[in-house]
Parts: sequence; structure tokens; C-alpha cells
Amino acid sequence: MSENSRDRGTGSAEYRGLFIALEGGDGAGKSTQSRLLAERLGAAGREVLTTREPGGTPIGEKLRNLVLDHGHGEIDARTEALMFAASRAAHAEQVLRPALEQGKTVITDRYIDSSVAYQGGGRSLGAVAVRDLNAWATAGLWPDLTILLDVDPAGGRSRRTTGSSVEDRLESEPDDFHGRIRVAFLELAATAPKRYLVLDASLPVEELAGIIGNRVDELLAARGAERSAS
Amino acid sequence: MSENSRDRGTGSAEYRGLFIALEGGDGAGKSTQSRLLAERLGAAGREVLTTREPGGTPIGEKLRNLVLDHGHGEIDARTEALMFAASRAAHAEQVLRPALEQGKTVITDRYIDSSVAYQGGGRSLGAVAVRDLNAWATAGLWPDLTILLDVDPAGGRSRRTTGSSVEDRLESEPDDFHGRIRVAFLELAATAPKRYLVLDASLPVEELAGIIGNRVDELLAARGAERSAS
Repeated sequence: MSENSRDRGTGSAEYRGLFIALEGGDGAGKSTQSRLLAERLGAAGREVLTTREPGGTPIGEKLRNLVLDHGHGEIDARTEALMFAASRAAHAEQVLRPALEQGKTVITDRYIDSSVAYQGGGRSLGAVAVRDLNAWATAGLWPDLTILLDVDPAGGRSRRTTGSSVEDRLESEPDDFHGRIRVAFLELAATAPKRYLVLDASLPVEELAGIIGNRVDELLAARGAERSAS
Repeated sequence: MSENSRDRGTGSAEYRGLFIALEGGDGAGKSTQSRLLAERLGAAGREVLTTREPGGTPIGEKLRNLVLDHGHGEIDARTEALMFAASRAAHAEQVLRPALEQGKTVITDRYIDSSVAYQGGGRSLGAVAVRDLNAWATAGLWPDLTILLDVDPAGGRSRRTTGSSVEDRLESEPDDFHGRIRVAFLELAATAPKRYLVLDASLPVEELAGIIGNRVDELLAARGAERSAS
């Protein structure tokens, strides 16, 4: 798969729906923006599916629990990357593709680029290897739009600890790990500017929701115009 | 990784031990030959580790149980291949490499070629894709010798049902699935003749054990001569 086809997304040729991924470090506000976008689209009469990774299917939830609950050092980097890819393969096959084929707008909280950033950047397995692994896992299902909520590691950490007193295995990594992940996300966005919308996660929630909503409306309008013309 | 380096095995450059994989369909007699070879080598004073896939580590056993116990249709082909690769990555990193670096002779009941045959051939994901996936999972750890116990599907099935009344998910696939797997194994052996020893699994157990033992003795002698010369 070429960079060019990744940048365009593979969506319009394959299915009627629109596929949106929310990405960013922990505490960036992805789940809040997912909910607000789903409410906006639902109010406009669109069928929306919100989902999340890792998980999203029965087998995926079991894999999520296995990988997140294990202690430090018990799971090496490649095993971890393969377990996330397995969970994602099930998610793509059982949940994402069927919904997109039904014409739904699908919003996922994390997708391939999280693995590229966390396992490729954070764990130093290499971005290209992890991207290729996940391209194979999903049979090439890339989002039409990826929204990166960019947050600096210190800001993310303070938000996380107000929400929950328990940090899971990945969240408890030190800040230099989160710093590498932030850089990895920004690099991914730079290589696929048409597919990415990069936003400063420290902006007010409603302002972020407005920018995201407008961008999605434009994409849906363009998709409708394409369909009328064909 | 080139075909050539796969055919030689990557072993001698990396570690002192000898890495042997037993492959073949269900009911071929792999576990019996693994035990007999370990006994022979142990009697000759060698340190031996016998292990099996899928599994071989705590996380690998959990993955093995997840993938084998799920019902038909709940796990798609790519997810299954990725879960086996994850289990194998942990096995290679935590068990196989450390034992080989300690100079042990490692005998594994199934390895990469099982996935290439079952998921690549049986499930039609493609041999090259599954081989590349597992080469990445193991960071290129290929056996020095792969022993294929070749069995025709009907023979394998009758042996299995005498041993156990319950067939797991993969064993209960129809015979044409096992026929595709047999062909896939034989094709793998043909592409790497130096690494493979192909044997008719219907030969008497002791005769098979003798052929295998002699071949392993030759490899160990050659390994010793290489070491003295260097």
C-alpha cells in the first residue's frame, strides 16, 4: 500500500459510510469528543457507531484485558504489538467494515496510528513495521479522517489523575515514553496531511467539538456530492 | 530475510545451541518423537529443552486457550493468525532464545511452518504473508532443522480419534482442510531442503526415532567441528 493511497483513505471505493478515528495520548479528551461528535451527527439524522480500541469485539475485549492487566516485563514489545493487531483485526472484520458497508458513520476511539505511535515509537519497534503489520491485520482499512488531539505529556498526566486513581500498565510509563508517543503522532500526521486533522487538546471542549463537527460536515457533503455525480 | 538465509537457518551465527522443530498434521506422532529424541540426547549427556506451540509461556498458554476454545466463526482467519504469532513471539523471546544462548538443544512441537501451513494454506491467507508475519514475530529465529512427519489426512484422523474423543476447533475441520495443510507442509519442505527432513509418519515409531536421531547427531557433530575450527 502506497503512502498516497493511505493519505486518501481507502474508504470511498469500498463502502458507503464515513470512517473517523480519534487519536492522541492518554487524557487528550478523545472519548468526550467521540460522544459530542456522535450526538451532533445523530441530531442531524445520521446513523452513527461509536467504538474503541483495543477491544470492540468479544475476542478483542479478552485480548485487551490480557495485554493491559499483565505486569511489567511479562509481555515483550513484539508480543504486545501482535496482540493489539489481533484485537484490531477482529474489530475491523466484525464491527467496522459491516457498519461502513451499511452506510454508517463510524467513530473509533484509537485505531492503527495508536499502535504505530505506542509500539512503533514508544516501544521502538519501528513505525514502518508496525504500520505494515496493522495494514495486514485490517486488510488495508484506513480511516477517511483521523483527528489527532495533541497534548503535551505533562498536561495529559494531570488530566488522567483527576479522572481515575488507578493507572493501567501503559498509562504508568514515565513521561519520556509519552513524549516519544506525541512526536510519533505528529510525524504520522505530517506524512498524511489530507487524512489528518491536528488539534490542540488544551482548547475548550466546545471549541474543539465545533472544529471537528465542521470538518466532518464538509466530508459528508463532499461524499454526497461524489455520489450524486456518479 | 532471503530464502537462502532461511534454508541455512540463522542459528549458528546467533547462539551455541541447536534448534529443532517437529511439524506435521494432527496425529502424525510429533509428541512421541519429541520425547524419544529428548531421551536419546539426554542419555548422551546433552542439555535438552522440549516445548510446544501454541503456548510455551504463561501469556502464550492464555492465547492458546483463547484461540482454540472459541467457537467456529467467532475468530476470523487474520485474528487467529495474529494470536498464534503473538504466542510465538513470547515463546521465542522468553523461552527459545534464552535456552539456545545457554547452548541447549531445543525441540519444539510445532513452530512457524505450522502457521504457514494452517493459516497460510488451510485458511488461504497466503504462505508469504504468514511467513513474513512470523519472521517479524520471532525476530528471524528459524530452526536449524525442521522434521516434517508427513501423514495423509485420513490416517491422521483415525489416530486422533483413538487418543481422544474430543476434537478441538482446528482438529474438527473437514479432511479437505487437512489435505491443504499436508500440501502446504510439503511445499515448504521443497523450498528449504537443507533445513527439512521429511519422513513418512506411517513408518514404525522406533524406525522414525532412529532416522531422526542419526540426523541430529550429524548436525551436532558438524556444529562441534565448526566450533573447533573457529
